[in-house]
Order: sequence, then structure tokens, then C-alpha cells
Amino acid sequence: MALIMMRSVATTRRGFFKLKRSSSGIRAFSSLLTSPPSKAVVYERHGPADAVTRVIEMEGVEVKEKDVCVKMMAAPINPSDINRIEGVYPVRPPLPAIGGYEGVGEVLSVGSAVKHLSPGDWVIPSPPSSGTWQTYIVKEESVWHKISKDSPIEYAATITVNPLTALRMLQDFVTLNSGDCIVQNGATSIVGQCIIQLARHRGIHSINIIRDRVGSDEAKEMLKRLGADEVFTESQLEVKNIKGLLTNLPEPALGFNCVGGNSASLVLKFLRHGGTMVTYGGMSKKPITVSTSSFIFKDLSLRGFWLQKLMNSDKVNECRNLIDHLLCLAREGKLKYEMELVAFDDFLTALDKALGKLGSQPKQVLKF
Amino acid sequence: MALIMMRSVATTRRGFFKLKRSSSGIRAFSSLLTSPPSKAVVYERHGPADAVTRVIEMEGVEVKEKDVCVKMMAAPINPSDINRIEGVYPVRPPLPAIGGYEGVGEVLSVGSAVKHLSPGDWVIPSPPSSGTWQTYIVKEESVWHKISKDSPIEYAATITVNPLTALRMLQDFVTLNSGDCIVQNGATSIVGQCIIQLARHRGIHSINIIRDRVGSDEAKEMLKRLGADEVFTESQLEVKNIKGLLTNLPEPALGFNCVGGNSASLVLKFLRHGGTMVTYGGMSKKPITVSTSSFIFKDLSLRGFWLQKLMNSDKVNECRNLIDHLLCLAREGKLKYEMELVAFDDFLTALDKALGKLGSQPKQVLKF
Repeated sequence: MALIMMRSVATTRRGFFKLKRSSSGIRAFSSLLTSPPSKAVVYERHGPADAVTRVIEMEGVEVKEKDVCVKMMAAPINPSDINRIEGVYPVRPPLPAIGGYEGVGEVLSVGSAVKHLSPGDWVIPSPPSSGTWQTYIVKEESVWHKISKDSPIEYAATITVNPLTALRMLQDFVTLNSGDCIVQNGATSIVGQCIIQLARHRGIHSINIIRDRVGSDEAKEMLKRLGADEVFTESQLEVKNIKGLLTNLPEPALGFNCVGGNSASLVLKFLRHGGTMVTYGGMSKKPITVSTSSFIFKDLSLRGFWLQKLMNSDKVNECRNLIDHLLCLAREGKLKYEMELVAFDDFLTALDKALGKLGSQPKQVLKF
Repeated sequence: MALIMMRSVATTRRGFFKLKRSSSGIRAFSSLLTSPPSKAVVYERHGPADAVTRVIEMEGVEVKEKDVCVKMMAAPINPSDINRIEGVYPVRPPLPAIGGYEGVGEVLSVGSAVKHLSPGDWVIPSPPSSGTWQTYIVKEESVWHKISKDSPIEYAATITVNPLTALRMLQDFVTLNSGDCIVQNGATSIVGQCIIQLARHRGIHSINIIRDRVGSDEAKEMLKRLGADEVFTESQLEVKNIKGLLTNLPEPALGFNCVGGNSASLVLKFLRHGGTMVTYGGMSKKPITVSTSSFIFKDLSLRGFWLQKLMNSDKVNECRNLIDHLLCLAREGKLKYEMELVAFDDFLTALDKALGKLGSQPKQVLKF
């Protein structure tokens, strides 16, 4: 195991984290506010996450007048976090970097010019930003979004990357009304599970496609309990008239693809004339292949969705309102997905689970 | 040659053309208006166009009160006409059918309730409709759009299917301004040539992709004379940095694909972030393959265009205004493409040329 746990070792490392944590240095001000030392998962080069990451301790940094120091409470290990570490994600923090992209924490201290946050508040970085896998984060007030303190911390930590993607994709491409229908592949993913529940909440039906695998019957039952109307394995869809399988559902005007290859083609087959397929992932690593007639005669539209771009636009405040709505649904038990809270000290095990080395596992959420 | 020319043979054929040409029968009215006998290209079954079509003569039919009888002057042989005869086009007239879909004619007589057309007027069917490969057509007034009589008949006959497709595709998907740029494959097609000229007319640059073939240098010169900024053969684009080939042109926000396969991928490569590719044909008979990241990280949109659907919508009057504009450009020499006017009696030869049996040939336009 290449990952080395380094505990109780304060690290300055020749300005190593200059971009993230400026050295406090010697100042004349008596009121100088400094964050506590932070324990963080760092990587200096791209590569396999279990080979290039290690946990180190870093000195505290100055909390400037507009800054807020947050004591992190929880942060998930998402697939895109792994991709950033591997170097295959198109937008990545400069190296060396701290892992993680979303999470939740409690305000520990605030700079003198901070107006809307106070110690004790719960906050999430919104838009999400790099470096949530550490015990203390210092960033400007504008980065933080205050949330209700009765939010379950595992949902507060994970509410943006997956649930907000599901919510925006259901509203940004096609106007759907109660009674309408959507189709998706990769339905057991967290986004897939959120789509089922958020659609159901609006009276929208869902057709769900999952991989053929051991346990597919259990997966079907799980998705149906969440509100899925239909769940098919890919092999069940090897039929001539795929729409003949829809008994009481309207043809879907909107489809979601996070797999690619044949699975994407199945989504396209279900879509009605004039329908739209939105791609937000490519788990099979295969491209999407579409016939000419799908575009000309079936009038299909193919689009893509990337939350990171959306949240770096003028949509941030709109997204923060949606996050509050999603947390409300989570509190009421109307939005749920399986997670496992793991102590930060067990980061190695959590990473192995997130990497799939220990079989199918729930979403890993680090608890600080 | 399976196609049989049948001349001077009046045909009633057991209600053969009941849908198209109702029998006049015996009436008590003395004012009964009847069209002259018509010579027409017909097919009773789908198959190779040179095997299943034949030219027959048909009796005249009644011109009812809302009908207009048009003496056809010219009608083209378009690839989609061939596809309808072959039975591979998704929307086809019921069999037996008369060939042809667009054309121009002169009003010969009008029914008593016809308000806006008079004998001598020049008209085109708008939206285009089946059965233009015949000498006399009787259809309701609403089908016909009156055009200026100083239009060159070969342009009047061909102004809808190709030039209107080019014009609508340039305006319906992306807002383009003078100085912007588009990219297209199949640039030597009539639609491709129209796109170059209509774009140029609006100050929009064009990047054009053509097949590698004997005569590609001449094709490049021809397209540049029409106003193309750049013309590349597919093999010229086998480079790592395709955008490095653009010296003074902005990255295109809009692309057109009528080929599929690798040629469609080249269009996608040229597109800028957030760009749209519109598919309107599939000459290579290969599908379009797109990477997941093109959708997520490059935010590309893929759409389709089909004029037949558009013109059967509420856009008919808008399209008729655009047709007048296109005919105006054709009259002024600002929109041109190569055509060959062929006497209707030489239909067999024109069909062979349209089928590519006699090498590369200009668009064949039947002259009645």
C-alpha cells in the first residue's frame, strides 16, 4: 500500500500548499487569527488514488478579514474525486492538491469583515471546490453556503454533486408535467436513484435500465421501492419492439445516459419522437453511436450536462436555493440513498471501498 | 431496362389513381371543368427506381371548385425522390404513386371558388407534395404558392428541397452574426453549396469538408468561387490539432452533417465549446459516433433537420416568404448551383444520370 498515514507531523514543506494555505509568518498585529493545524489527504502527482495520496498534517494559516475557518464534519469520496487524482478529469486543481470536492463543516472562526456567517453555523462549499478532505479549511465567506443545522450530515456532505445534478437535469432540458415519463440507464447510481425519487415527487414516471449482474433482482426491488415504475436489465431489452414493453406509460420525452455504448442506444430507442437524451457520465467508457435517421426522422436531440460548469456560471444562487430544497426533501425522508460514514482515520479503507476493491459498497462518506 | 415508356395510351386502370385523379364520371352539369390527359412517371411497388417506374398517360380529372389545374413546366429528380420510390424513405405516398416532390408549373384553369390564382400564374407546390413528375396536376388552391414569373424555371423548380433546407438550418438552431463561422461536410452537395452562399451573403464564414476523390482540387476551386473560406479533404484533416488549421477564422458554433461516420466526427472536432451539429443526411450510410466527453465537457448539442416535417407544421407561410427571398437571390445570381434541364421525354436518361450510372452529373431537372 503506497498510501502513508502521517500523523502528528506538522508540515510546512517549502511553501508546498502556498496556493491553499499561505504561511502566517510574523505579523505585528496582536489580533492575528490563525486556523488550527489541519490533517489532509494530499497528492503531488496524478496516478492511481491508492498510490499517490497520503495523509499529512499542515500548519495553521491566517484567517484574513473576509475569510471563514470551517471545521469539516463530513465529505464523500465521489468517482469524480478519484478521476481528479488520476488526472483524467478535464478540470483539476494545480498540483500539489488536497482531495475532495464537496462536504459539510461547522464555522470555527470568521475574519473581521465577514457579515453573514458566525461560529457554529453549518456550511457547505457552494459551488463545490477542491480540498474538502481535510479537517480545517480556510476560504472566503463567499464560497460558503449556510444550511439548516437539522440536516443529516451525510446528506449535507453529498447534496450537491449527485442530487443537484439529478434535479437540474430534470428541469433544464425538457418541460415535464405530472404524468410524463423519463428513461435512464445506470439507474442504480446515486444520481439515478435521485432521478427516480425527484421525478416521482413531481408525478413523473421513470423507466430504468440496469446492467445484467448477480443481484439484479434485488436492485430492481430497491429501485421500485424508491418509486421506479419499470426496471429492465439490458438483456431484457434485446427485443424487436422495445416500446411494446411499456404497458401503461407514455413514451418518454427525456432520457439520461451515464453509461454509453449499447446502454445509451437503449435509452434512445425508448425516447419518443422529438425526445432529448442528456449524457452526464460514461461508465462503460464506450462512445455513443446514433443513426442518421434518429436525428432526421425521429428528431432526437443529444445534449450533455456538467454541474461544475453550471455552478461556475451566474446560476450559483439559484443552485443554492435548490440545495436547500433538496436538503428539505432529505430531512423529510423523500430523498434517500445508501451511504456509509467512515472515520477519517480509516481513509485507506474507505478509499479501497470507493475504488471497488472490496466489491459493491455504499457511497463512502468521511467523518472528521 | 425495366422502365417502359408508354406513350399515347390513355389509362383508367380500375381506379388506379383514385387518390390522385378521381374519375370525372357522368354529371348533369354542363359547366364541368376537366384537366387535359396527363403523362406521368408512376410506380406500383417499391424497388430500384429504374426497375419499378414507367411513364403512362392518364385521363383528365375533374377540376373541382377549389381546385387549380397546373401545367407543369419543370421538376427535379432529387435523391429523396429516389428513396421514396425505393421504399426506404420514412414517409411515402400510398402505392400506386406518381414520382417527384417539388417543381414549378403554370396555372391552366381554376375552379369557381378559387380566389387568388388565375390562368397564366406560375406556382410551386408549397409544402412540396408527391406527384410532380407529370404534365398536369390538379390540386386545391391552398397547395399552390404563386411566384414571380421572372424566376428561372430550373431554380423555381428546385428552390424548396435544397435551398430552403440550407436557409432554415442557418437560422433555426444557433444565432449567427456577421463574422461568425460554420463548418460542414458534404460541401459539394446542392445544400452544401447553398449553405456557403447564404452564409457568405450574411457575412458568415464557412469551413468545408469534402471527400478525397479524383477532381477534389477542382471541387475546392468551385466551392471557393462560391465563397467558401476553407475547403479540406477528409485526409487533410488527419492531424492531431485540427483547429490549428484555422488561421484567421473563429471556431464555429454551428456545424452541418450530411455524411455520417468519420466525416461527422470531423465536423464535431471543429466545433467550439457549446457548439451544435445538425444532421440532415447520411450519405456514407454510417452512423454518428460521439464521445461522452464531447457532451459533458465540450457541451456539444446534436440535432437533426427534416424540411418535410417543418413544412407540414404552422411554418408554411413563413417558409413561402423565405422561398420568395431565395428566388430573389437566384434571380440576382447570388444563389446558384449547377443543373441540367432535360426534356421529359428523355426521363430514362435523366433517371440514369440521377442514379449515378453515368458518373458525376449535375442535378437533373425534367422540363415538360
